[in-house]
Amino acid sequence: MSEFQVVPANKHDDLVAAAYQARGYTAEESSVAASVCQEAARHGIRTHNALKALHLDHLFGSATGGCVPGAEIEVVNDRFKASEVWNANKKLGQAVAVAAIDRCIEMADEFGVGQVAIDNAFHYLWGGGYVMKAAEKGYIAYTNCTSTLAEVVPFFGKHPTLGTNPHSWGFPTQDANGFPIVIDWATSTVAMGRVQQLKREGKPLPPGAAVDKDGNETTDPNEVVSLLPFGAHKGYGMALINELVGGFIGGYLPTERGRKGTKTTSCFYFQVIHPDAWSSGAFVHGDQSANMKAVLDDILGHGNEKCLLPGQIEAGFRERTDAAGGLLFTNAELTEFKELADEVGQQGWELENFPEESA
Amino acid sequence: MSEFQVVPANKHDDLVAAAYQARGYTAEESSVAASVCQEAARHGIRTHNALKALHLDHLFGSATGGCVPGAEIEVVNDRFKASEVWNANKKLGQAVAVAAIDRCIEMADEFGVGQVAIDNAFHYLWGGGYVMKAAEKGYIAYTNCTSTLAEVVPFFGKHPTLGTNPHSWGFPTQDANGFPIVIDWATSTVAMGRVQQLKREGKPLPPGAAVDKDGNETTDPNEVVSLLPFGAHKGYGMALINELVGGFIGGYLPTERGRKGTKTTSCFYFQVIHPDAWSSGAFVHGDQSANMKAVLDDILGHGNEKCLLPGQIEAGFRERTDAAGGLLFTNAELTEFKELADEVGQQGWELENFPEESA
Repeated sequence: MSEFQVVPANKHDDLVAAAYQARGYTAEESSVAASVCQEAARHGIRTHNALKALHLDHLFGSATGGCVPGAEIEVVNDRFKASEVWNANKKLGQAVAVAAIDRCIEMADEFGVGQVAIDNAFHYLWGGGYVMKAAEKGYIAYTNCTSTLAEVVPFFGKHPTLGTNPHSWGFPTQDANGFPIVIDWATSTVAMGRVQQLKREGKPLPPGAAVDKDGNETTDPNEVVSLLPFGAHKGYGMALINELVGGFIGGYLPTERGRKGTKTTSCFYFQVIHPDAWSSGAFVHGDQSANMKAVLDDILGHGNEKCLLPGQIEAGFRERTDAAGGLLFTNAELTEFKELADEVGQQGWELENFPEESA
Repeated sequence: MSEFQVVPANKHDDLVAAAYQARGYTAEESSVAASVCQEAARHGIRTHNALKALHLDHLFGSATGGCVPGAEIEVVNDRFKASEVWNANKKLGQAVAVAAIDRCIEMADEFGVGQVAIDNAFHYLWGGGYVMKAAEKGYIAYTNCTSTLAEVVPFFGKHPTLGTNPHSWGFPTQDANGFPIVIDWATSTVAMGRVQQLKREGKPLPPGAAVDKDGNETTDPNEVVSLLPFGAHKGYGMALINELVGGFIGGYLPTERGRKGTKTTSCFYFQVIHPDAWSSGAFVHGDQSANMKAVLDDILGHGNEKCLLPGQIEAGFRERTDAAGGLLFTNAELTEFKELADEVGQQGWELENFPEESA
């Protein structure tokens, strides 16, 4: 018995796009948003599926002015040939991210590397999805952003002044090992959503994950006020990078971001590299992909056969989704989709319409 | 009483350059090597000062063929305008790194970003030094490399198949906070040198730092065979990045690197970005530096005044060095310098020649 029921991808996309359009987003924005949500669901990224995306939009986005439906991207700085800076004007983050990766790819084709830095941005959800898409097209890609809220305490600090600031890297390794390697995580040890989950389950946090109201470390989810960076000073450095990049772009105080203040928007950074621009051509066996296969086989050999590569779990879930012939959602998720369908007047979202995933 | 004695920087450089020349390196290579060692000592990077550099050269470099004095860099791929790939032909790592950063800066001036990927490289020692220099010139800089030996076990693995693979980022924040922020660390929780030190002191390792001969985690330095990545799967991902970058460039099996095998050299990667290429121009107060100051003041405010910024300790040691009017070395280090001086016939390295640092 599977915990999942199977929903046709186009039915999912129709509903999600309609929900975005009902909030004022253009047909094009809504279509991109639905497609990004589909990819998240397809890869088992349940923390950033359509339900989370729409919830986030409600909390911080179109309902509160953090995101502006129909906004237009402006290129505000194209002085340098392999670089652009955009003012996103609070346009839907997913639409901005997809456009930025595409522009980076064009620049990487000519210059070997291309970058787009973005001011006045609103949450792009699953950063790993954008770099994975670029990797599938054969490019190395990287993105970071400043997270909406400052929830993380600097190393040796007391008060949260850093976002959970994620980093995402995608590498086109699919010819070597069957799927793109995607390294994609927030720089807090755990997310605030995980703290809530552990609170519900009555379980402790791992050490080094959170602090209480006095800034002292705690593993009791009921006492948690703020998060800690992963890996002590090293993860703190990784969290700081996003704030520095944001500071150079035009981002303002982390503690005002997503709240009230003079400038409360996020910043995005994207970079794409053409793998030929890294190649010395001097591969021991065959080509770049054969070389990568030899390197990966060496890393995962010698008794390390149980190790996973980053992106492997997502690639596995995608295979499962594709085998099922539709997106996989739990009963609880489908109940939420039904509510959404009722709101926008879409039919056929009763639970019994969706078959259980075959074993 | 200080633990340090003060050595004139030019006396240090003369000795180090002579020691490199005695091993066959050209005058130019030896001069660059001395200068890089001086910067390491000046910033208190005692793990990568001249003594360590020459020891490393003896173990893996000119004495064993890992590094070739007088080798010439070849540009093997300049198909892309903001990118170059070099064959370092095992030239001295410090000389290659300095040249690569300079070339990246030239490209960043025109394209906003420039990258140099390097095959057949030999250890560049302190990665933080190169990006710090670039930051002092006003640029954002990044480097990574594949470490000489595979000493780190992948997450959930048993056998060391990853280097300690460092990452170094430099940010030109000196106008905002007085020194460039430099984030610079290896991706193992601790270095093998730290394990040796704890063994001598009879102290345990921190948890999550190392494994024994069976691949089981241990905190007993006497049992340590291999290291673990910092921050569980997140640090594992960071260690893997260097192997992937190396694999795209032309690097071969990590477990043969620095040992015997078909291709045992390291790879370097450098990237420099012009900060104007990130600027939206839309800063709340004043310019980019004023904005950065506001962001950093916010992060280190609210009760976080005791937090340090990465690079702050190094900047502090540099002030101390500059105040002393010479490089600071311990008695034990000076004894080693004296041996070196005797080998290459340089005079005046008796301990009593160097004044103690004033309190």
